[in-house]
Amino acid sequence: MANTDSVNVRVLSLNCWGIRYLSKHCPQRYAMIGDMLCREEHDIVLLQEVWSEKDYLSLKRKLACSHPHSHYFKSGVIGSGLAIFSKHRIHDTFLFRYSLNGYPYMAHHGDWFGGKAVGMAILNIGSLTANVYVTHLHAEYCRDKDSYLPHRVVQAWELQQFIRHTSAGADVVILGGDLNMHPEDLGNRLLRSYTGLRDSYLETAKFDGCEDGMTLIADNPFISKKELLPFDKGIRIDYILFKGSSKMDVYCDFMSTTKGSVPDHPFPYSDHEALTAGLRLETHTTTETGRDSQSKNKDSAAGKLAELVDIVTEARTEVKVGLHCAQSMRYTAKRTGVMGLALLFLEVAIATVPWLALGAEQPFPRTSFYLLAALCFAILLTTFLLYIFYTIELKSLQGAEDQMRLAVGSLQEKLRGFPLAQPHNAQRRPPKAHEPSAFDPEE
Amino acid sequence: MANTDSVNVRVLSLNCWGIRYLSKHCPQRYAMIGDMLCREEHDIVLLQEVWSEKDYLSLKRKLACSHPHSHYFKSGVIGSGLAIFSKHRIHDTFLFRYSLNGYPYMAHHGDWFGGKAVGMAILNIGSLTANVYVTHLHAEYCRDKDSYLPHRVVQAWELQQFIRHTSAGADVVILGGDLNMHPEDLGNRLLRSYTGLRDSYLETAKFDGCEDGMTLIADNPFISKKELLPFDKGIRIDYILFKGSSKMDVYCDFMSTTKGSVPDHPFPYSDHEALTAGLRLETHTTTETGRDSQSKNKDSAAGKLAELVDIVTEARTEVKVGLHCAQSMRYTAKRTGVMGLALLFLEVAIATVPWLALGAEQPFPRTSFYLLAALCFAILLTTFLLYIFYTIELKSLQGAEDQMRLAVGSLQEKLRGFPLAQPHNAQRRPPKAHEPSAFDPEE
Repeated sequence: MANTDSVNVRVLSLNCWGIRYLSKHCPQRYAMIGDMLCREEHDIVLLQEVWSEKDYLSLKRKLACSHPHSHYFKSGVIGSGLAIFSKHRIHDTFLFRYSLNGYPYMAHHGDWFGGKAVGMAILNIGSLTANVYVTHLHAEYCRDKDSYLPHRVVQAWELQQFIRHTSAGADVVILGGDLNMHPEDLGNRLLRSYTGLRDSYLETAKFDGCEDGMTLIADNPFISKKELLPFDKGIRIDYILFKGSSKMDVYCDFMSTTKGSVPDHPFPYSDHEALTAGLRLETHTTTETGRDSQSKNKDSAAGKLAELVDIVTEARTEVKVGLHCAQSMRYTAKRTGVMGLALLFLEVAIATVPWLALGAEQPFPRTSFYLLAALCFAILLTTFLLYIFYTIELKSLQGAEDQMRLAVGSLQEKLRGFPLAQPHNAQRRPPKAHEPSAFDPEE
Repeated sequence: MANTDSVNVRVLSLNCWGIRYLSKHCPQRYAMIGDMLCREEHDIVLLQEVWSEKDYLSLKRKLACSHPHSHYFKSGVIGSGLAIFSKHRIHDTFLFRYSLNGYPYMAHHGDWFGGKAVGMAILNIGSLTANVYVTHLHAEYCRDKDSYLPHRVVQAWELQQFIRHTSAGADVVILGGDLNMHPEDLGNRLLRSYTGLRDSYLETAKFDGCEDGMTLIADNPFISKKELLPFDKGIRIDYILFKGSSKMDVYCDFMSTTKGSVPDHPFPYSDHEALTAGLRLETHTTTETGRDSQSKNKDSAAGKLAELVDIVTEARTEVKVGLHCAQSMRYTAKRTGVMGLALLFLEVAIATVPWLALGAEQPFPRTSFYLLAALCFAILLTTFLLYIFYTIELKSLQGAEDQMRLAVGSLQEKLRGFPLAQPHNAQRRPPKAHEPSAFDPEE
């Protein structure tokens, strides 16, 4: 399928770990990143964790010649951390903030303050329209007891919705970012199956990089090996995904990652490895559509639909677990608040009743009285804020669950349109281990 | 252009004013609304301010036969209030929460708690795909000194972005809702110009309803006439907008509104009037594309682009006003916080220094000490929360402003592609009298 009309697009994705004053060697690393981007001249650069706008602006100045077009997505308290640099004109941008993103009181995890989101930029690559997405999902701090899993699943759900619904007019779709999910994690399967996005690591013709395409590796000097356990060599959580359209086919010719160090420099660009994918866009050539191939296509479409039903059902279960947790947290907040109120009433009663009834000297020590009252007010305020927060969380989880239920119903309806396609199998096929599905039910 | 293949779609939009226990005659009005919807059998029903899920569920039960498909959009603390009922299958839904929506401490206005959003449902009408949107923007409490204007403009900006980017695959687009904007308000012009949505009141062949299509009228018994002033008869702030696609043409055959009362009932359905639009969808027939018409089309496209540049620039100015306000509010919060902290230090110093230095009896009255300390802590906590809140507001406003600047640049770039089209007019059209345009060619 060699085509002289092909367009080559090189894409880089990097989580910059750019927390000013906290991330190690932050200014030096930004200087290294800027030099590398200037030199390498990728078509599209997708950065995450550029937490300070100043760092974005200094990169923008440095890349003014190599990447004249750029956009920084603002969100949350300290920003979304998402930035895009491009050789091609960006003619529109749009930001979708995830409805759930951790808890504000988990300040040491900091995700809530980051205002995690997915940013979209619409680029013109020659005469083609490319929808480019950059995102960063909630981190996974403990794989065994991952209390953020429902939040991340809802983020993956919203990410696939956003991409599916906004990319209908695009010739090519590219997503890069730190998904904080392993390749076969639920959210990742949901994203790939529903959008039809393909993983450049799995699709590439040539690969040069870390073993198994890992992007958070034990050999990186900024990584604490303990935190990676039980994955002693590392994990793959950063991705460049892509898909074509009815008009364009997309192929991944090569892919590479950095390997935990940068030649001639004392440390790497970041705690994550940088990913580069070389994509080739070619005008779609229609293949034969004989009866056999049509029937085969139908079978495979039905199989993929059935798989998708399974995945969405699994996601629904996970969201329900989150719902249960949020409900019990809200209940706890409510109960604690009621106890605080009761304590306050009790205190006021003890303090005032003798004065009212006996007129005797105040028996309640003043210091204790005020300290206790302050405690009660603090409890009331905290539990009130928590109650509001958990209510918002509940609404978001319920909303996602409703949408998933509706989606499953709609997918099953579609499935009934394939009466001959593997009736047993299609209705509830167990998900396969690692099948990179590229099915787009919208098509 | 009579076409036998036409499809008729009747759409209703109603702000239900459904605040349990607070809105007058709420249960009776819901019963009336349910009866009417059952009887009228509109194809699509778009409801706003259905604040309680219980009310949605009871409507759902009542409409199970006439409208088997429905969706309730959940968001914020008490929900988005948005619901959709349909005779046609809803096969996908998506919710976009506006990044700005008033202030939580303006509890008596309540908008913040509602989690205002735009809900999308994808319907199959026969073989056609309809993208149906329902929304409710921030209320306008005082037209002369509308402190929420920047928020509403950003909402209108995000609404047009959402519709534009998600409707590429649709054959027909329908938006219904309470926009809380007059027909020629900035946000409304922005929405209509950018998306190409047409106003059914302006497009309808037949109209039956209130004067000037008003939807909040003085004759409605739930309306306080004072609040409407200076518009003594009423205002038009609810809309049904629509557009077709390259495949389908859409026409509005008739439109109607209720008129402040319902026959045989003591009061109307709501404080807002209900809108009904009869839309006719027809397969698009290509018209002649002679040279003259092409050149005319180009001229009109350039004119529209130039107008859009003006509108986006005006919106940008409004957002900048909001930015300025948010910045000064954040500064005030910061300053007050610092003063609270200084007061606390002063108090601690006064209380502890004599004890440290002189060992004398505590000179600071205990009661005052604790009360003052509590006050300081309250100030610190409140200003801290406000600071965080205003920072989020600033980020959202800055984000919208960045996107608008990029959009203006991109539109101007497009405009340069029309070299012959009204060179003076198109490149820099003087703003109209009532259109305080602040053209800022920053790019």
